[in-house]
Amino acid sequence: MSADDGATYAPASMPRPVVDPGEFVIAATHLDHGHIGGMTEALIDAGATLKWVYDPVPERVEKFREAFPQVRVARSEAEVLSDPDVHLVAAAAIPSERCDLGLRVIDAGKDYFTDKAPLTTLDQLAAARAATERTGRKYAVYYAERIHVEAAVLAGQLIDQGAIGRVLHVAGFGPHRLGIGRPDWFFERERYGGILCDIGSHNFEQLLHFTGARDGQISSATIANHAHPDTPGLDDFGDAHVILDNGTTGYVRVDWFTPDGLSTWGDGRTFILGTAGYIELRKYVDIATDHGPGQLLLINGDGERRIDATGSVGYPFFGELILDCLNRTENAMTQAHAFAAAELSVRAQAQARVLTH
Amino acid sequence: MSADDGATYAPASMPRPVVDPGEFVIAATHLDHGHIGGMTEALIDAGATLKWVYDPVPERVEKFREAFPQVRVARSEAEVLSDPDVHLVAAAAIPSERCDLGLRVIDAGKDYFTDKAPLTTLDQLAAARAATERTGRKYAVYYAERIHVEAAVLAGQLIDQGAIGRVLHVAGFGPHRLGIGRPDWFFERERYGGILCDIGSHNFEQLLHFTGARDGQISSATIANHAHPDTPGLDDFGDAHVILDNGTTGYVRVDWFTPDGLSTWGDGRTFILGTAGYIELRKYVDIATDHGPGQLLLINGDGERRIDATGSVGYPFFGELILDCLNRTENAMTQAHAFAAAELSVRAQAQARVLTH
Repeated sequence: MSADDGATYAPASMPRPVVDPGEFVIAATHLDHGHIGGMTEALIDAGATLKWVYDPVPERVEKFREAFPQVRVARSEAEVLSDPDVHLVAAAAIPSERCDLGLRVIDAGKDYFTDKAPLTTLDQLAAARAATERTGRKYAVYYAERIHVEAAVLAGQLIDQGAIGRVLHVAGFGPHRLGIGRPDWFFERERYGGILCDIGSHNFEQLLHFTGARDGQISSATIANHAHPDTPGLDDFGDAHVILDNGTTGYVRVDWFTPDGLSTWGDGRTFILGTAGYIELRKYVDIATDHGPGQLLLINGDGERRIDATGSVGYPFFGELILDCLNRTENAMTQAHAFAAAELSVRAQAQARVLTH
Repeated sequence: MSADDGATYAPASMPRPVVDPGEFVIAATHLDHGHIGGMTEALIDAGATLKWVYDPVPERVEKFREAFPQVRVARSEAEVLSDPDVHLVAAAAIPSERCDLGLRVIDAGKDYFTDKAPLTTLDQLAAARAATERTGRKYAVYYAERIHVEAAVLAGQLIDQGAIGRVLHVAGFGPHRLGIGRPDWFFERERYGGILCDIGSHNFEQLLHFTGARDGQISSATIANHAHPDTPGLDDFGDAHVILDNGTTGYVRVDWFTPDGLSTWGDGRTFILGTAGYIELRKYVDIATDHGPGQLLLINGDGERRIDATGSVGYPFFGELILDCLNRTENAMTQAHAFAAAELSVRAQAQARVLTH
């Protein structure tokens, strides 16, 4: 963000590694979703030392080792969980299996960092809440579409600085490209959790975060398989209207209809309305421009500004998470918040009306 | 829209006057809302002959005459309604009075063209439906944010041509600037009808139009006075989740929070998701660019395109309405559609949950 933006509001300084090599040791296990790569890399960038990788599928381990050649290959999950050096286990299991894995990690006395959605049922949620309360261990969640998107991080900082007044409403659009080569579980609702639980979870988390709410209620939700009759277990569409506990509202729309002609996987957008201005995030593409990803539009009493967030604020979540684990604090994200987002996601999916033509 | 857009899809030819002078005579009465100017001008551009103006407030009549010096000033509403030359009465009364006026116009054997929202209660809706069914007269509505916005007209044409496949979802954002100098009725909910009925009606109409639905249900709605304690009758925010009768969904958000720094009165947007692409409308401003209003973003299998709709398609509604009145057809907009949008607007307002902090 250059001085040319005329910005009154300044991004926080770029995060740096928060620990020295060996001070915070992590393992990566259950590589079902490719997000594990971004999760691991971001932790390493924040100072973590990657010791172990484990997955039952050798091909996935090999691919992971290409990206992280320093890693040791564990022969079993138990080898990872029994290593007293390991502080945190990062994992991207099949969504329906993420909670069971988390409970094993927590029972082993370690903190857990899972890809979103962190779980897929209310029973799992109750078990996860109980485990964290009993042990004090963390069940942290990689809500990537906020914590790993600089425009979204910058938006949070601008809101904290009062750039748009009091936030009243957040709308999030999360279109994704279906592509080819998705694994079987991707089309089985019981395993991926349904679209509002799966990719919807990113946006429920953002509703809570940007409105500053602690919790919310799903006022209305729908899901559909509009145009993929060969994979009836796929929700290709979902939306939800949310009333937050602080008198604000939000709306989430997610789908698998990114057109072939879009230059990236999805035109993720967030609109944050405040009493004194609004922010629009064009996270991954600013359509039909050469602006690149990471565009933040800020409109308030000072005028209209487009801010390129790329390189502005980095991803402070990961260093904060490391310090939270070491210091038993909650600066990166509170456990209550991570679970509140999960609860909205699971409840939205469970109560969604199924659309038919 | 230039050839440089590489557009496969072409706008229809620009509309021209559909009748000669004197063939279709109109009057303008009840000038409470400034929209009457745009309504009258658009009808004149389509060939209508303006004969009369009537309003009980002389200052409003004088202002209208400055814009339309050819007009004759009627001494009463009755003088207008009793003139056999007059085919149609255009009016922008206080919303709660629009239906009574329409019933008088229809009882006089003339067609009625009212500013939106066309009415504010379900009782009025029943009376208006009965009157149109009994007489065959028209109760037409100026849903300006679609029929008088070239980007929106072009969007409809592109959808009809299959540019984005089957439409699945429409989201409409209608922020407005409160400004100063609004009349008293603007802050009295009984008279303006509430935010979802008033400015919301534009977007409910677009949900029906772009999805091709005949009707819908309000699944969830909220209203609030978030930040205007001095005018408690003002809803400064409203939103609604709608399930349409053809298995599609929509979402509407309206508010009076346009920041002072925005270069126009409101950043109206529409997002139309189809099975084969999507359209975004930046109706009045493309933030932080010099593109001007009327920008249509089209993303489908052919790529990402921004199309400047200004000067591309004009406003065919008005000529079609004139011919509909002369020929007793329904090409501009069906009566059922105009009332379905009104019903969604009134029902959304009536069932909206009132948000509190």
